[in-house]
Amino acid sequence: MSELKGACIIGQSGGPTSVINSSAAGAIDAALKSGAITRVLAAEHGIEGVLKDRLFDCGMEDKRTLELLKNTPSSALGSCRYKLKDCDEDDTDYKRILEIFKKYNVRYFFYNGGNDSMDTCNKVSKYMQRVGYECRIMGIPKTVDNDLAGTDHCPGFGSAAKFVATATAEISRDNKVYGKGSVLILEMMGRNAGWLTAASALANRIGEGPDLVYLPEVVFDMDAFIARIEEVAAKKSSVIVAVSEGVKDKDGRYVSEYGSDLASQKDAFGHAQMGGLASTLANIVKQRTGLKTRGVEFSVLQRCASHIASRTDIEEAFLAGATAVNSAVAGETDKMVGFKRGEGASYSCECVLLPLSTVANAEKTVPLDWLNETRDNMNERFFDYALPLIQGDANAPTVDGLPEFANLKKVFAE
Amino acid sequence: MSELKGACIIGQSGGPTSVINSSAAGAIDAALKSGAITRVLAAEHGIEGVLKDRLFDCGMEDKRTLELLKNTPSSALGSCRYKLKDCDEDDTDYKRILEIFKKYNVRYFFYNGGNDSMDTCNKVSKYMQRVGYECRIMGIPKTVDNDLAGTDHCPGFGSAAKFVATATAEISRDNKVYGKGSVLILEMMGRNAGWLTAASALANRIGEGPDLVYLPEVVFDMDAFIARIEEVAAKKSSVIVAVSEGVKDKDGRYVSEYGSDLASQKDAFGHAQMGGLASTLANIVKQRTGLKTRGVEFSVLQRCASHIASRTDIEEAFLAGATAVNSAVAGETDKMVGFKRGEGASYSCECVLLPLSTVANAEKTVPLDWLNETRDNMNERFFDYALPLIQGDANAPTVDGLPEFANLKKVFAE
Repeated sequence: MSELKGACIIGQSGGPTSVINSSAAGAIDAALKSGAITRVLAAEHGIEGVLKDRLFDCGMEDKRTLELLKNTPSSALGSCRYKLKDCDEDDTDYKRILEIFKKYNVRYFFYNGGNDSMDTCNKVSKYMQRVGYECRIMGIPKTVDNDLAGTDHCPGFGSAAKFVATATAEISRDNKVYGKGSVLILEMMGRNAGWLTAASALANRIGEGPDLVYLPEVVFDMDAFIARIEEVAAKKSSVIVAVSEGVKDKDGRYVSEYGSDLASQKDAFGHAQMGGLASTLANIVKQRTGLKTRGVEFSVLQRCASHIASRTDIEEAFLAGATAVNSAVAGETDKMVGFKRGEGASYSCECVLLPLSTVANAEKTVPLDWLNETRDNMNERFFDYALPLIQGDANAPTVDGLPEFANLKKVFAE
Repeated sequence: MSELKGACIIGQSGGPTSVINSSAAGAIDAALKSGAITRVLAAEHGIEGVLKDRLFDCGMEDKRTLELLKNTPSSALGSCRYKLKDCDEDDTDYKRILEIFKKYNVRYFFYNGGNDSMDTCNKVSKYMQRVGYECRIMGIPKTVDNDLAGTDHCPGFGSAAKFVATATAEISRDNKVYGKGSVLILEMMGRNAGWLTAASALANRIGEGPDLVYLPEVVFDMDAFIARIEEVAAKKSSVIVAVSEGVKDKDGRYVSEYGSDLASQKDAFGHAQMGGLASTLANIVKQRTGLKTRGVEFSVLQRCASHIASRTDIEEAFLAGATAVNSAVAGETDKMVGFKRGEGASYSCECVLLPLSTVANAEKTVPLDWLNETRDNMNERFFDYALPLIQGDANAPTVDGLPEFANLKKVFAE
């Protein structure tokens, strides 16, 4: 494979995570060290920054700031939810991207995101091939939802899982203090995949986890739900329930819609917007059982609580970014970096490359045999899978008791 | 003062905090070391445990467990919200307490709680004096609300403030990633005192704090609120608003109750609007400004996120517990331990003793001159006050990436 010399663009897309900037740091670090990459550009707000020619020069950032990126949550480059049209229908955006790539002699494009972002990568890559513009395009995975196909797990999930498990344990203690019948309903992110809801069950390892876990992978039945809560409440004064925002009934209707018409609003990708499920369920349980209830939504803290990020996750996210760059320089293109877990008893993880076409728009859900027989809690298979991913302290730098985040200079190119 | 020999009872009451068990650890440690205290008992669920004769022997707990209490959130002894009747009206409870005190030769009673708990202490103390039963009674302060009178600050506040400031900073980053007009409304605890809402403004020190802060100390005006949001939104793409659960309008009506108005508006569609103040305000702002909004309630994590407790708070809470015991052994009674801040430029804090009668049922609110001129953000006076309280890492022990909490054996007496 001949060496391809030129600039690179690094972009972030989709919902942020606690460690998405660690992947950016890994990619920037590898790109700055590479002899083939002549200039390291970052797109402000992902593909939108390319379309708007808003590219800043990472070479102008100081070393300390780039180091701080590892512990800075939430898309420091800026994110977007821009969906490229099919290029056969409308190639306006693609022509513009090509124009920008030519303007800066961009020969490498690294895009950090989830399913939709891999779709963007795949479309851009196909277009560049069609028009004969040599450019290597790599996807870097990212999602707290952990739902990307082909990879053992996704950067961002371990930190979100660590926050969820820790917060569940703490709130479980809080729910026990009065020793009186009280049902706590915890709502976690996850439209179609219940990974984060399952993560709350990790707290069961220290006796503080949920009594009941409801994933979107399992059809939600309100009567069974109420019956199970009453069953647990008959034995214990504190009932902890973990439920995914995306649970649906047998008719395919989101349970969150039972209490709020806001859920029918759709985002740019046509996904229904979630939220309010915890309080909806808390109200229904209160009405039907007479028990004291409280609903708690972990909300966006799941994806940005970098103060309790997993060290394993921070390092793997960095590695994924660096691997994307080094692989592209070595000649790879049209791939997403994925993780493959080692076979041994102790946890190990190495990067693999997956074809973008197999990753884009596919979705990995929680295997049903990782749930218990009644499908309302997790079993050892899930614990074996998830526990290694939450190991190690974030050691996030602080100043005056407050987090120290990276503040990029963002010196725009040209 | 002659030495008073006998058993002691330690109890926890009211809403828990991240460091309430550090105060218990301090009191237990000092009591076990004291020559005057013959037996160290803990009441399960506060005064209810006394009434029900549910007392366990702290001498049976191992050292490691007592050490773990310092980092274990949420009333490990068990809490209650039991309010003693006036003893002139009904002395049943008081007679029962005296009976239990006599049964175990209890000569020391340490009660860890907020305003109501200091009222309980005061009532029990007065009754014991009246019937001539020699017993020394001390209050240990505790409240995330920071609203106890006479003390510079309360154990529990520093840790809650650190969580609020850190989470605000992280969520602020999350709200900026798309660079598009978005209003984030953060709801903090505090019915009558806005200390925790003010704490979110600490994040302004790193440029990530709220643009607008609404405390219950200031009358809430919806039109002014909307106008200020529009003003900020005209200049910035991300608007962060911190609001206390207890904000009221000029008629003294809680703004959180406006949600039921929205619910009746939506009855026509067959949907009830659920959720607290944050989502109510988010909906109102969306309707009136057309801006994208999100409401986030920090909920109970404010009072139990021990993984990010303030080291200063943990140590001061321990000191408050120990001081209560040592002062009582030295002859003091009818006092609450309070904190007095040193005069110097660098932070220092010492314990003082305050008469229970002046503390019980009084409430300390945020001084209005600690707010800016428009009374919708905090100024340097508040930062000077609050910053020292969030210093230092919790260094909370973990096992397998999960928190390691104290699990008391609770060997019940007799």
